Amino acid sequence: MRSSRRGAVDPFIVMDVMEAARQAEEAGRRIIHMEVGQPSTPAPAAARAALAQAMERDTLGYTVALGLPALRARIAKLYAQWYGVDLDPARVVVTPGSSGGFILAFTALFDAGERVALGAPGYPSYRQILKALDLVPVEVQTSAENRLQPTPEDLAGVEYEGLMVASPANPTGTMLDKPALAALIGAAQARGAAFLSDEIYHGIEYDKRAVTALEISDDVVVINSFSKFFSMTGWRVGWLVVPEGMVRQVERLAQNLFICPPHAAQIAALAALDAQDELKGNLAVYTRNRALMMEGLPKAGFDRIAPPDGAFYVYADVSHLTDDSRAFARDILDQAGVAVTPGLDFDPVRGGGTLRFSYARATADIEEGLARLTAYMAARG
Amino acid sequence: MRSSRRGAVDPFIVMDVMEAARQAEEAGRRIIHMEVGQPSTPAPAAARAALAQAMERDTLGYTVALGLPALRARIAKLYAQWYGVDLDPARVVVTPGSSGGFILAFTALFDAGERVALGAPGYPSYRQILKALDLVPVEVQTSAENRLQPTPEDLAGVEYEGLMVASPANPTGTMLDKPALAALIGAAQARGAAFLSDEIYHGIEYDKRAVTALEISDDVVVINSFSKFFSMTGWRVGWLVVPEGMVRQVERLAQNLFICPPHAAQIAALAALDAQDELKGNLAVYTRNRALMMEGLPKAGFDRIAPPDGAFYVYADVSHLTDDSRAFARDILDQAGVAVTPGLDFDPVRGGGTLRFSYARATADIEEGLARLTAYMAARG
Repeated sequence: MRSSRRGAVDPFIVMDVMEAARQAEEAGRRIIHMEVGQPSTPAPAAARAALAQAMERDTLGYTVALGLPALRARIAKLYAQWYGVDLDPARVVVTPGSSGGFILAFTALFDAGERVALGAPGYPSYRQILKALDLVPVEVQTSAENRLQPTPEDLAGVEYEGLMVASPANPTGTMLDKPALAALIGAAQARGAAFLSDEIYHGIEYDKRAVTALEISDDVVVINSFSKFFSMTGWRVGWLVVPEGMVRQVERLAQNLFICPPHAAQIAALAALDAQDELKGNLAVYTRNRALMMEGLPKAGFDRIAPPDGAFYVYADVSHLTDDSRAFARDILDQAGVAVTPGLDFDPVRGGGTLRFSYARATADIEEGLARLTAYMAARG
Repeated sequence: MRSSRRGAVDPFIVMDVMEAARQAEEAGRRIIHMEVGQPSTPAPAAARAALAQAMERDTLGYTVALGLPALRARIAKLYAQWYGVDLDPARVVVTPGSSGGFILAFTALFDAGERVALGAPGYPSYRQILKALDLVPVEVQTSAENRLQPTPEDLAGVEYEGLMVASPANPTGTMLDKPALAALIGAAQARGAAFLSDEIYHGIEYDKRAVTALEISDDVVVINSFSKFFSMTGWRVGWLVVPEGMVRQVERLAQNLFICPPHAAQIAALAALDAQDELKGNLAVYTRNRALMMEGLPKAGFDRIAPPDGAFYVYADVSHLTDDSRAFARDILDQAGVAVTPGLDFDPVRGGGTLRFSYARATADIEEGLARLTAYMAARG
């Protein structure tokens, strides 16, 4: 059987850790999961109840490609509630997860061979989705003094047709404030490049609120999802906000590439948008976990960290401890029974000296994980 | 905002009919829907019950990218039950609908600019998905004497890196028998081209059973879905069967492009596989509807039709009545209140002289639609 060059994408390095963790658990060992990128909570109860009801009375066939009109309208309202932005529901496109949103946005904007600039470290699938679509990821190394977010200066001299940023970012949890985001949008627009803003961690933010690119410009593509704040990873439902002039093209692509987002997930998502009490409860857990991490990681010996503005990750510089984060993560799993993600997944250049710790799980797990990490590092000397 | 060339895919011509039908219904008129490509039945009751239960006890987070192991194993067993084929579950890839299966298969097999041969008429999204992925659809005109299925002779002199067929086909409902399918697989393999078999309508077949490409070769990609026979269109869950050597590449692509298929839909699909009684009931309705169509359409004046082997469509040659199937479909809607699909969606070259009638809906609707078509054609004279 033939195979394509573009399909030869890299494996996730964390998969080795996850497989080793699975084997350890199968052998009866208890593993603390600080490698996971998803909440341990289910979809809000109201979301599940809404779907249970809908299954009794509706055939749940195809929806229109852009998503249920009521869901698009309710998402538009979220922009008024969260940001004070007045958004036309016609610009909201419901997608099969943010993954589907990336595929739609990239195919609508870029032809084969075009370049999309990304800050490194960053979400590894950005690179791989671009490659699978015959596009060229251009990774820009960011600086610690900019909290590992790109700046227009980092982009000077870089050729690109698109620029994508994430705030709060994965793996760092750092955010771009409004002037920083506006400067990047300005840099992209000055060269006629498309600007894409991955806002999937919005809502999971701590000391200050996240800024949407829509507060700055209408000529941007925003990618978001019900996976993180709304605790609906496995449901595969997200959304795009696109410029008015792009809606028809995205609609035609969505009709052909996906037909529609999952109907059941759309029903659940609509109800999740009004499950504020339960979602605030989840956020309170992340807030508590974050405080534990900020106190416990330095005590354990992981002291080169910055407080995350949002999301549920801490990205630690461990370059004084190792230049092989993959082997280090494996040793932490074997010795301490804690699964963590090697930085190489997020930054092929410098990630040998970094680890990502997730605090998305229950607080008791975070406490246990920190205790284990402390003992491990003490034994390591 | 910039836009790509590859994203400039064609609209579905039937969308005009559907929008006009919607407006007519809004104005209080009753429309008979013979344009739809989906069952009017919901997912089997057992599937909905399984999900309702799972929502109570499971967080329904991400699954592994290839899908729930139990679902992959159960799909493999379906190949033993339906075809007597012994299939390794490791070769089954659960996908976000057959749409997701096409995206995975095409990106795993082909690089930008490569050519995929398709018979015309055919499912319009084949062309558009290929275009969106910077691939080149090569449409091969089929013959009425071959019941509008391609043959190796039709492909003589055609350059291609992939060949995709569908049996039963949309819009014709015709099937390829084992020798015909084997000849096409042989033709593709002789030139080192990949062979893809769209088997989404398997299970909905009448006088003889459909043949899977896996009965002939392991070096093929099979695309299937829970949408049609299993009556789960809006759930967005399907599957691929790929050669053993392709599994790892497809897994990596699936991890990055989709993360996983919708978890809720996978739970429902697993239960649907054992809901044989309810599914047989649905099939009995299609069988009855097909008989009504075979009797009623010629009486109405649509006599250039062939009995479909499977699926729930009749593709009518109306070239003696019109060369503008779009206007004809619009007139049928306006005058008779019956929505049908212009052939131009399936065949840009000859589709001006064809219409597709769907009989997927309830039998009472089919009876009413045929009565209206008869009156319309009588009045047309």
